[in-house]
Amino acid sequence: MNRPATTPEPPYYAVIFTSVRKSDDAGYGVTAQRMLELAARQPGFLGFETAHGDVGISVSYWSTLDAIKAWKANAEHVLAQQRGKAEWYASYRVRVCRVEREYGA
Amino acid sequence: MNRPATTPEPPYYAVIFTSVRKSDDAGYGVTAQRMLELAARQPGFLGFETAHGDVGISVSYWSTLDAIKAWKANAEHVLAQQRGKAEWYASYRVRVCRVEREYGA
Repeated sequence: MNRPATTPEPPYYAVIFTSVRKSDDAGYGVTAQRMLELAARQPGFLGFETAHGDVGISVSYWSTLDAIKAWKANAEHVLAQQRGKAEWYASYRVRVCRVEREYGA
Repeated sequence: MNRPATTPEPPYYAVIFTSVRKSDDAGYGVTAQRMLELAARQPGFLGFETAHGDVGISVSYWSTLDAIKAWKANAEHVLAQQRGKAEWYASYRVRVCRVEREYGA
């Protein structure tokens, strides 16, 4: 992805996932890529943006809160979340947001 | 910043700024740092996270929509926004969001 996600007219929803990874994060990259592929197939998925520096920030966009709940409960995603907590993340925050307004160029 | 922003109990607001920079972005770094310093002094500023990859993602957190409006209208920030559009950004999106729920570890 080399451009901002293309999303519809608000309102829609965003999940901001901010994380700091441990130095030993074996398996993270493969799982992250797999989760993106799975998420993109979920009903209500609108787009995704990610960037990594001192922290990693991944934002996924969704049509409804129910679509976010369904993705959170996806069986393979649940396993990835458990592994993330146990192995990969020194700290993380998940913020579920309603996008009220969008503009750009 | 080497950890996620520490923010209060929701609801509060987030501005997700996703951008792709042009290859020639002289002056960007200094201005970006200055804008963060200025934003942090604005009433209602709660925190900031940023990371850069193929896209840059910067998320600022605010107590109210009025705090976001006041920051957008800050004179020095207005100049930086104009310069960003004219010189630095190949494309960008600004998404103003209400944070409904937050959790993490």
